[in-house]
Amino acid sequence: MKPQHLLTAIITVTLMMLAHSKAKADEGMWLFNAPPIKLLKEKYDFEPTPQWLEHVQKSSVRFNAGGSGSFVSADGLVMTNHHVGLGALEKLSSLHKGKDYVSDGFYAKTLDEEFKTVDEELNVLMDIEDVTERVKAAVKPGMSAEESFAARRGIIASIESESLKKTGLRSNVTTLYQGNQFHLYRFKRYTDVRLVFAPEQQIAFYGGDPDNFAFPRYDLDVCLFRVYENGKPAKIKHYLKWSKRGIKDDELVFVSGHPGKTDRLTTMAELEYQRDVGYPFLLQRLYRWEVMLGIYSNGSEEAKRRAKGFLFGVANSRKAREGGLAGLLDPEFMTKKHAQEKALRAAVAKNPDLKDAAKAWGTIAKAQKVRIANIRKYTVLEAGGGFFSTLFGYARTLVRAADEYAKPNEDRLGEFADANKKPLELKLFSNQKLYEDYEITKLANSLTWMCEQLRFEDKLVQQVLAGKSPSDRAAELVKGTSLFKATNRKKLYDGGAAAIRDSADPMIILAKLVDTESRAVRKIIENQVEEPKNQAYDKIAQAKFAVEGTNTYPDATFTLRLSFGQVKGYEEEGKHIPFETTFAGLYERSKEHKNKEPFDLPQRWIDRKDKLNLKTPFNFVCTADIIGGNSGSPVINRKAEVVGLIFDGNIQSLVWDFMYTDKQGRAVAVCAPAIVEALRAIYDAAPLANELVTGHRGKSQDD
Amino acid sequence: MKPQHLLTAIITVTLMMLAHSKAKADEGMWLFNAPPIKLLKEKYDFEPTPQWLEHVQKSSVRFNAGGSGSFVSADGLVMTNHHVGLGALEKLSSLHKGKDYVSDGFYAKTLDEEFKTVDEELNVLMDIEDVTERVKAAVKPGMSAEESFAARRGIIASIESESLKKTGLRSNVTTLYQGNQFHLYRFKRYTDVRLVFAPEQQIAFYGGDPDNFAFPRYDLDVCLFRVYENGKPAKIKHYLKWSKRGIKDDELVFVSGHPGKTDRLTTMAELEYQRDVGYPFLLQRLYRWEVMLGIYSNGSEEAKRRAKGFLFGVANSRKAREGGLAGLLDPEFMTKKHAQEKALRAAVAKNPDLKDAAKAWGTIAKAQKVRIANIRKYTVLEAGGGFFSTLFGYARTLVRAADEYAKPNEDRLGEFADANKKPLELKLFSNQKLYEDYEITKLANSLTWMCEQLRFEDKLVQQVLAGKSPSDRAAELVKGTSLFKATNRKKLYDGGAAAIRDSADPMIILAKLVDTESRAVRKIIENQVEEPKNQAYDKIAQAKFAVEGTNTYPDATFTLRLSFGQVKGYEEEGKHIPFETTFAGLYERSKEHKNKEPFDLPQRWIDRKDKLNLKTPFNFVCTADIIGGNSGSPVINRKAEVVGLIFDGNIQSLVWDFMYTDKQGRAVAVCAPAIVEALRAIYDAAPLANELVTGHRGKSQDD
Repeated sequence: MKPQHLLTAIITVTLMMLAHSKAKADEGMWLFNAPPIKLLKEKYDFEPTPQWLEHVQKSSVRFNAGGSGSFVSADGLVMTNHHVGLGALEKLSSLHKGKDYVSDGFYAKTLDEEFKTVDEELNVLMDIEDVTERVKAAVKPGMSAEESFAARRGIIASIESESLKKTGLRSNVTTLYQGNQFHLYRFKRYTDVRLVFAPEQQIAFYGGDPDNFAFPRYDLDVCLFRVYENGKPAKIKHYLKWSKRGIKDDELVFVSGHPGKTDRLTTMAELEYQRDVGYPFLLQRLYRWEVMLGIYSNGSEEAKRRAKGFLFGVANSRKAREGGLAGLLDPEFMTKKHAQEKALRAAVAKNPDLKDAAKAWGTIAKAQKVRIANIRKYTVLEAGGGFFSTLFGYARTLVRAADEYAKPNEDRLGEFADANKKPLELKLFSNQKLYEDYEITKLANSLTWMCEQLRFEDKLVQQVLAGKSPSDRAAELVKGTSLFKATNRKKLYDGGAAAIRDSADPMIILAKLVDTESRAVRKIIENQVEEPKNQAYDKIAQAKFAVEGTNTYPDATFTLRLSFGQVKGYEEEGKHIPFETTFAGLYERSKEHKNKEPFDLPQRWIDRKDKLNLKTPFNFVCTADIIGGNSGSPVINRKAEVVGLIFDGNIQSLVWDFMYTDKQGRAVAVCAPAIVEALRAIYDAAPLANELVTGHRGKSQDD
Repeated sequence: MKPQHLLTAIITVTLMMLAHSKAKADEGMWLFNAPPIKLLKEKYDFEPTPQWLEHVQKSSVRFNAGGSGSFVSADGLVMTNHHVGLGALEKLSSLHKGKDYVSDGFYAKTLDEEFKTVDEELNVLMDIEDVTERVKAAVKPGMSAEESFAARRGIIASIESESLKKTGLRSNVTTLYQGNQFHLYRFKRYTDVRLVFAPEQQIAFYGGDPDNFAFPRYDLDVCLFRVYENGKPAKIKHYLKWSKRGIKDDELVFVSGHPGKTDRLTTMAELEYQRDVGYPFLLQRLYRWEVMLGIYSNGSEEAKRRAKGFLFGVANSRKAREGGLAGLLDPEFMTKKHAQEKALRAAVAKNPDLKDAAKAWGTIAKAQKVRIANIRKYTVLEAGGGFFSTLFGYARTLVRAADEYAKPNEDRLGEFADANKKPLELKLFSNQKLYEDYEITKLANSLTWMCEQLRFEDKLVQQVLAGKSPSDRAAELVKGTSLFKATNRKKLYDGGAAAIRDSADPMIILAKLVDTESRAVRKIIENQVEEPKNQAYDKIAQAKFAVEGTNTYPDATFTLRLSFGQVKGYEEEGKHIPFETTFAGLYERSKEHKNKEPFDLPQRWIDRKDKLNLKTPFNFVCTADIIGGNSGSPVINRKAEVVGLIFDGNIQSLVWDFMYTDKQGRAVAVCAPAIVEALRAIYDAAPLANELVTGHRGKSQDD
């Protein structure tokens, strides 16, 4: 389907879906092929045109490793968050002895100085095709859960493979509305991604853990990359222009990005599972990791550098999950969710056509029990919680690639489908540097955790440990493996099943050892948890459409969505929190804390304070509906001009995972003018500031 | 029993017990009334006289809050570790706005400047009486576990109460050899305890978490107090003289202190419980606390000060428990333990007289199952894990005091026995400062943990939360309670049952709410776990005597013990670690780490480096058998002169909890000369250095 046809289809579908919509809060992570046109018209008197939507869609960028971004110049410049670029900054540092681009920042004055990142992949969504009917047709009545799952996986692999062959575009089928719809997404891939600019992490993550998820805020959480094609900056048709005037209070803004995962349509049974088991179990691991990484980091400055990005991610997840758990433990919140579910179930019970749907809640509750019974084993073996080393990850991929690529495309595990082959290889052959001591530390810790979770006497645990203590075994595995080198991994990969069978590499042998049980528990989760849940949610989604007749959006799925909202402050503990901060506020906060960590300023910011316009707006909040994965999303105005850069949500937004409320919950963004002002006054990067403002490299503002 | 009689008894018992002893490693935490005389004679040609033993015993001091110390001058000067004095330093700081004696250190130049600590209590062991027969006689054949427990508790309370009335000394019956023996200990109490000197925590805990449990080491982990009587420095007969010559390689040394808890006689079933449940469960909480306290500390400098001591303790426990768990997960170690147990059980099986003992292992294994089934509830409710606030602790004490003091002494919970009344009141009426935000943080975190452990839907959990989220409920409780003030606590305490019944204080109401279930689970643990275990261990201990016929020492019980060993380095990863470090090494280590935290030096140590004799020995290791609780113990030579101050064990000693080995395991101590040299050259505290060296206040070395 060509873009113009798609857009016609979008409008048609959208108008149909919106027929019964009612005015609501600024809730929603809307599909680009089903945008909230009527809602926007009614509430804000704004009607996005198909051209507006296409332009924003194609200006949006997904970071394959997680995170969002946008094209901000015709010459391939991509804007995202510092914390999205963090992995790339770390890997670059590890390739240049003595350099620490995370701490010190980076600026390439010329194209020659732009650093090629190690294994970054950017995707741009080119079009969307609704393949629901084809996917659903593959699942025949009377099929068992296992057969249904295999049939669906098979048809999806075929659709993706066909599309890849036909268009050359990366093609992925996305499951929406918990299995009620399936859309085929086609992406243009950019794999030559170079680093252009990053500030010091100290200012990108100013205020550290205490200020994380907080507002007022003072973070320059920005990072600029450039995509190349054929060794030259890529020529980009759809990029976002820079707003000349910034934001105003109450202004309507949009966020285009890739929210990762929400649980807004989930049933009480599943929420209770998260409250009682899922979140506590995950938090337990996060606490453990945070302590482990803190200890490792304390060893030396170099160790600190190595673990910085991961520690940042763990602490960030921990704070987010704690916020989510607090929501789940809040009776007011759960009572509201419970009432919603009760009302829907009552309506379903009254409608004889929805008899099947009435059973769906029970099915989900039952699936949760299977999940509880298997979650430890699944997390330890299949999710890799027991083998927490990048080297083990490589070993598992190699072992499974040998098995899976020998099968027809339709029968493979999802991650080995043809459509995912190139990204898999990019990751597997990455030349990122790994450190022996760091890998041993992580692996020893996770092997110990495995003993705790599966019990020391467990037969597989004993086989894994091979008569050694977790730390001795971890050292033996890491010191004995040859997988540090990409060339060795390539050799095993190319050698296929025979190479894997004959390999004496201890990490390969370990991956083979756990594979049978690991696949078995994955099968249980897929067939007895995910599949019945998908079918049940499909029915609930249908019932919801039937009963509420309302326009809605699907839960987040790491695919491109459009959110909207207003620039707006809020009340907290009887005090009004204004919608924006300024550079002046940054210096006040630093003074308040005697410039002590994590409130200390980078030296450049101290030295150049008087060069800076302190009235420049720095960070702001809006009511747009976001979640993790939206990091790096552009905030744009009605004219689709960049006014900001999403980097966080406040603490009150952490319940958005389960339910949106704009009473206090806010998305937090860097103000566009702050980026330009900092580039000019602090970083001597006027040419880059000009590129943002003009949309062209080498063009000055006055041209 | 008068001292001389006691000492005669000691010798008699000892000679009897040692008749069959064989030469061993430097293992053992020996009772002062059963010292390893023969062993010392054989191995080191040293025979401590009764006078030597009495002198060392009465020079030793127990800190009631945990930790050891010794008298080091005739004028009441007490030496211990900085980390033992940490609580006192924190409480003092909280009473003096703007002061932070933990970070900045403290030195009282005159008696007037010596700060009276808030609620410190020091105990000196005056004599020991074996009351085994009387205690055992109270338990009649045919009694149920519950009746046995009550009978034993009753007779112990009576013995303690009688002794207190008769002698005026604090009297506690200690259970030794897992219930095989009971000794009555009588202590002189000192409750007017004043702070004299503490260095900066930075040098006391130099190297922080990375160097904790490590060697080589560079810590001045010392703190000096002075005990007063009638407003004047107490006159002390038994105090340790200062060695003029320090230590030599291979020299025999002694450690006199209060090791807290070892598990060397425990069965495999109990070790496996610790490996699979006990340690992981505790570590989970420690990780959680460490993260929580880190976050709280990050809020401000003041918050950091408030949480410092507790965070230190948590991180220290975490590292110690991780080391212990590593031991339990080490097959070599467990195989050795298993072989020992197997040999003993085989010998027992062959001996018809030990029929009863043969069943003991099964009894213990069964008790562990009950423990597993109740450990969560017990930890949450009775051990206070769910109500982690000092205010709740006060409330519980008040609620229970009203109940318990109305009963006869013999029927009360152990901590409310007459003999423990004074220390309990000292703690309950402490004027230590509490902070609202800190108490809310701890309580909210632990109420959340309670939800996880007992499940949110649990009836009692719902009653505790009273319709609120954990954090809202914590805020309500802390903001609503009147228990911050000691006078309010006193009023409720004096008001007894009626005052507690009528109290509208929310914390009191909460303590009453959980009391029934909390007491019930305590009863299960006491009657179905502790009591059968005690009886079983009694039988195993008897069997061990019968089979091995060897002299042995009881597991650690927080009571005074004498250890011995040699000053000795060790091999690690093919490298020899010398037995001592010097001040010069400290400056090298700081340089190595660019003087960055936690390897940064206090400013005074930078400024005065050239005043310091850099060759002064700083820290050393020896093979003496110690464990947590020994912190602050003096290290003495054959002449009972102070040559050092125990403050840690190395990482290889962390398995000593379960089994002693001197292959690499070492106790770590501050060298006595380092203390004197630092007092003179760094702290301008020559008079104090002179008091140490001469044993008298106001006396100079040349007098």
